[in-house]
Amino acid sequence: MDVPKFKVGKPHRFSRHPESGYAIKGRVWLEKDGELYLGGGRVILLERVDELGSVAAAARSMHLGYRNAWLWIEAANRLAPSPLVEKTKGGAGGGHTRLTEEGRKVIRQYRELRARFHEFLQLEG
Amino acid sequence: MDVPKFKVGKPHRFSRHPESGYAIKGRVWLEKDGELYLGGGRVILLERVDELGSVAAAARSMHLGYRNAWLWIEAANRLAPSPLVEKTKGGAGGGHTRLTEEGRKVIRQYRELRARFHEFLQLEG
Repeated sequence: MDVPKFKVGKPHRFSRHPESGYAIKGRVWLEKDGELYLGGGRVILLERVDELGSVAAAARSMHLGYRNAWLWIEAANRLAPSPLVEKTKGGAGGGHTRLTEEGRKVIRQYRELRARFHEFLQLEG
Repeated sequence: MDVPKFKVGKPHRFSRHPESGYAIKGRVWLEKDGELYLGGGRVILLERVDELGSVAAAARSMHLGYRNAWLWIEAANRLAPSPLVEKTKGGAGGGHTRLTEEGRKVIRQYRELRARFHEFLQLEG
């Protein structure tokens, strides 16, 4: 039976009562060879690129500079097993930018990780 | 049977192989009414005060300014249910500073939280 050790025994908790004002907070992110690969900000940017089909619109929607948005995307693309975002060229409306299959997969994985982390924090809190 | 949901089904993992270079990283800390109460730095400071019996020595040992060390301790004392650190007065060698029972308890709890969080990251990684 596959029960994680940190759950067994339910040791001290800081506070079981939200009204106490005490809360356990946290962050998780992914690194590749010690470099930031994906954290909350980059994932939101990727999600917005997916929704809006444009890096300019995605950046604007999160009050991020266009140049910074591209730096984030280029770093994530470089560190990923294969690129997460790609530009498509041509067509009547000019090119646009979209997520690759790898990009969609990694967003899904990150959301699952974040959900499990929130459950961890709930169990601890 | 008390099995946390986030463990059931073992969904996608980012990487099962440390040699891939991918790693999940994270931080946890405690807040009281939205203010930082205890994180890794403050806990190390409290541990050093406990070991060394002096805020000056504890601050020096972690390359932290004496004034900042006291600001951290005062904030933690203020946010704790009861003070974590107290000064004792008098005696031949003058007063010294030591952890209260509450201070020792909270360090123990934080270490346990951190250990369970490391297990969580291991399981995810």
